[in-house]
Amino acid sequence: MRAAVLRGGRMVLRDDVPEPVPGPGQVLVAVKACGICGSDLHFASHGADALAAGAQMEGMPELGEPVDLSADVFMGHEISAEVLGSGPDTDAPPPGTVVTSIPVLLSATGVAPIVYSNTVIGGYAERMLLSAPLLLPVPNGLDPSHAALTEPMAVGLHAANKSAITRDESALVLGCGPIGMAIIAALRLRGVEHVVAADYSETRRRLAQTMGAHDTVDPAQRSPFEGITPAVVFEAVGAPGVLNDILRRAPARTRVVVAGVCMEPDTLVPFYGAPKELTVQFVFAYDAAEFAETLRAIAEGTIDVAPLVTGEVGLDRVGEAFDALARPEEQCKILVTP
Amino acid sequence: MRAAVLRGGRMVLRDDVPEPVPGPGQVLVAVKACGICGSDLHFASHGADALAAGAQMEGMPELGEPVDLSADVFMGHEISAEVLGSGPDTDAPPPGTVVTSIPVLLSATGVAPIVYSNTVIGGYAERMLLSAPLLLPVPNGLDPSHAALTEPMAVGLHAANKSAITRDESALVLGCGPIGMAIIAALRLRGVEHVVAADYSETRRRLAQTMGAHDTVDPAQRSPFEGITPAVVFEAVGAPGVLNDILRRAPARTRVVVAGVCMEPDTLVPFYGAPKELTVQFVFAYDAAEFAETLRAIAEGTIDVAPLVTGEVGLDRVGEAFDALARPEEQCKILVTP
Repeated sequence: MRAAVLRGGRMVLRDDVPEPVPGPGQVLVAVKACGICGSDLHFASHGADALAAGAQMEGMPELGEPVDLSADVFMGHEISAEVLGSGPDTDAPPPGTVVTSIPVLLSATGVAPIVYSNTVIGGYAERMLLSAPLLLPVPNGLDPSHAALTEPMAVGLHAANKSAITRDESALVLGCGPIGMAIIAALRLRGVEHVVAADYSETRRRLAQTMGAHDTVDPAQRSPFEGITPAVVFEAVGAPGVLNDILRRAPARTRVVVAGVCMEPDTLVPFYGAPKELTVQFVFAYDAAEFAETLRAIAEGTIDVAPLVTGEVGLDRVGEAFDALARPEEQCKILVTP
Repeated sequence: MRAAVLRGGRMVLRDDVPEPVPGPGQVLVAVKACGICGSDLHFASHGADALAAGAQMEGMPELGEPVDLSADVFMGHEISAEVLGSGPDTDAPPPGTVVTSIPVLLSATGVAPIVYSNTVIGGYAERMLLSAPLLLPVPNGLDPSHAALTEPMAVGLHAANKSAITRDESALVLGCGPIGMAIIAALRLRGVEHVVAADYSETRRRLAQTMGAHDTVDPAQRSPFEGITPAVVFEAVGAPGVLNDILRRAPARTRVVVAGVCMEPDTLVPFYGAPKELTVQFVFAYDAAEFAETLRAIAEGTIDVAPLVTGEVGLDRVGEAFDALARPEEQCKILVTP
């Protein structure tokens, strides 16, 4: 079958990928749509650095097999798909059911994330395996393309939840890429009454307002901290220097939620954080309840993801889509529809 | 009168400092003892950097006048003193009362920290001004030298409080200087049942056990994270590299409390914090209730500060004491007794 794989830093189309065969508890699905995540772009260009940093890191359980960048890497973790069949002794929805899932593959040998792998096929493929116990049927009538955005939008809901923000607190969202957008949508879902978003791109600022930001700031024009005393600042840029700038400018006792994943070394002045007693909370992913709540919110229209989808490509054009996403003036979320 | 002042990076004795005159709400005191704080040492050697970083920082109220390093700087903020008299219309304890105080001077023109100043005299002087409303009488019988340690010990209590640690959670304290010691004492005061302390110095490790650490680690021998899953890690070193090492090694969901003030730029890999969802809480100083509780604990003997005092000097030997404190094998807290 066909799949787009990472090979030597570029996404290339293969048509000789062996058909995946579901084991017990697994389901074979046909991918309907798979969103391209910023972390995929980052991994494509800085995969070696990311793996080296990961290897240095202690205190995490080992999940899945180590990734070999000299071999093809499967990616794609923002998935909606149609059930085709299931493995032995598996309680699965009937074929034809459209589903989404937390990107984790359960098997007899353990738990593997569906994110970057030489063996576990991701959503940039015609077919893949998902885990029957983790499937969420997509409610009737929801466009599978929109269901694929459950995953990135759940990241925003998780960040908003971890911040423990209340309705009457002000939020400042730095960076209006997909994660920033997901945070804005989640803050509005939680009823937060003052959400300010900052981005250098005018297109993205306009999109942020569509997603619910009450106000936007162009950081080239003025400091995002001018005229607002945010209780929570969401870092959704993930580039070196941003965190230090927040520490330097944020008012005393601000809760800083780091949702942008900066994989490069970053320099900051801890002294900025001290007298202001800032808190920096790193957040990552979501839990199963947040994922399910996000799907429900999209299906019910309380989160409208339609404006975020700025492009759609087949498996043969994933590489082009990666290049296009490097130009934020034009693109937000591109879906791969195999 | 006499005072030790910072002049060109060195502490020098002056005998021509004008007598301070208390204004309304102020009290003239004779300093009984003043502890030398690590931040004083840091300011003496890196004052220009600290002032530059402070000038860059937004989101803080301006307190006191800017410090001019080309003029003499008064320092000393860990104070016990005897009341000599008071300003007009001031409700003050009678002369002879031994007091301690949060190092803040209230006046008609505003609020000035007693920490580094060209005009506000600190505790490295024969006499100084304190604020009548902030004075705490030292309970009968408590050695004024020990009362002077209220301030640094309150820093530890504040750090422990901000961590929201519970008795059955494990704490790892990195760095056994005075701040680390204060944190260890506060954790024991709060009933925490597993406190591990790490320091390269054997003297300091022994002192940490005296102060209540259940176990100590020499980081040159093994990782402080080996054999412990700390709920809270206290950073009490304040040197570049330590925070990144914590992010890299700490288990998932650890709360990192940064009590050591690193004034230099520091490099870290934010990616370490993300998948483990670490929280980094910068803490600073204490509130009035924590200060009062600390004095009470010292007076009642639930915190025994006696082992921390490793030296005592007069005003003429403050410079020597600063040099001695750079050698942690020998010294922990040196008191200036004018």
